[in-house]
Amino acid sequence: MKDFNSQIILGIDPGTHRMGWGIIQAEKRKATYLDCGVIEERKETKAEQLLALYKGLSALIEKHRPEMIGIEKLFFMKNQTTAMAVAEARGVVLLLAAENNLPVVEVAPTEVKQCVTGYGQADKKAVTKMVKLILGTDKLKVLDDATDALAIAISAMILK
Amino acid sequence: MKDFNSQIILGIDPGTHRMGWGIIQAEKRKATYLDCGVIEERKETKAEQLLALYKGLSALIEKHRPEMIGIEKLFFMKNQTTAMAVAEARGVVLLLAAENNLPVVEVAPTEVKQCVTGYGQADKKAVTKMVKLILGTDKLKVLDDATDALAIAISAMILK
Repeated sequence: MKDFNSQIILGIDPGTHRMGWGIIQAEKRKATYLDCGVIEERKETKAEQLLALYKGLSALIEKHRPEMIGIEKLFFMKNQTTAMAVAEARGVVLLLAAENNLPVVEVAPTEVKQCVTGYGQADKKAVTKMVKLILGTDKLKVLDDATDALAIAISAMILK
Repeated sequence: MKDFNSQIILGIDPGTHRMGWGIIQAEKRKATYLDCGVIEERKETKAEQLLALYKGLSALIEKHRPEMIGIEKLFFMKNQTTAMAVAEARGVVLLLAAENNLPVVEVAPTEVKQCVTGYGQADKKAVTKMVKLILGTDKLKVLDDATDALAIAISAMILK
């Protein structure tokens, strides 16, 4: 029977060539680690690249059946070309969420830091350390982008 | 029999709530007007909005079977939040192009002006006037966003 207090959350750290993802099970405000990884693709055109990301994420959603998506909000970036490209990838993620009727929680970078470390200006090291502590994944070898995605999933659980 | 000198081009002026589109038939460098319009949607969430645009464009592609997509490149915009939202919509258009195996020609705003008026700093009025002249649509009542989309389609024909 479905436990309505429990929810599977997919956190996504959007990127064009590397997209980190992390899946947690949220029970009230307790997060349990399920899986994580990075979708990495190098296609010739931007359109093919977005299609590859779309397919990779579709497969993930089909496999893990998340009930919510957490995604990082995009803020002012020094490199506008990169920012636009990441926003295009975000568009594909949001489209997939709507296609699968999944609610989306958008979290700002400072909110992610605040949620997992209690301090909005925390550095990357502190975020990594706290994600490991919260999820008990200190023995797992987790890539940076996937750690960020797990942090985003935890933040979505807290902020939803 | 398919005429390989002739090609149907769909031009898109990307936007989040209004997306202009224009379809031309390109024969060598001669453009003929086929159709144009604006997809206008107001959904509650950004994800649902992108899905509505996706569905609208899918229907257009199915109906008109374009062989190429022209889309405006995004440049520095004063309002970064708007720029990000337009980039997300662009991501959905590029995804659709890849799903339908359609080559994409991205054109900068100055290129569009250059292509249809011969002058990269031309104003909106000159662009509208020249699109009407090139396509012979002076008797058609065409919305602004659709005129831009037709100008983008003409530019894609020239720059491809």
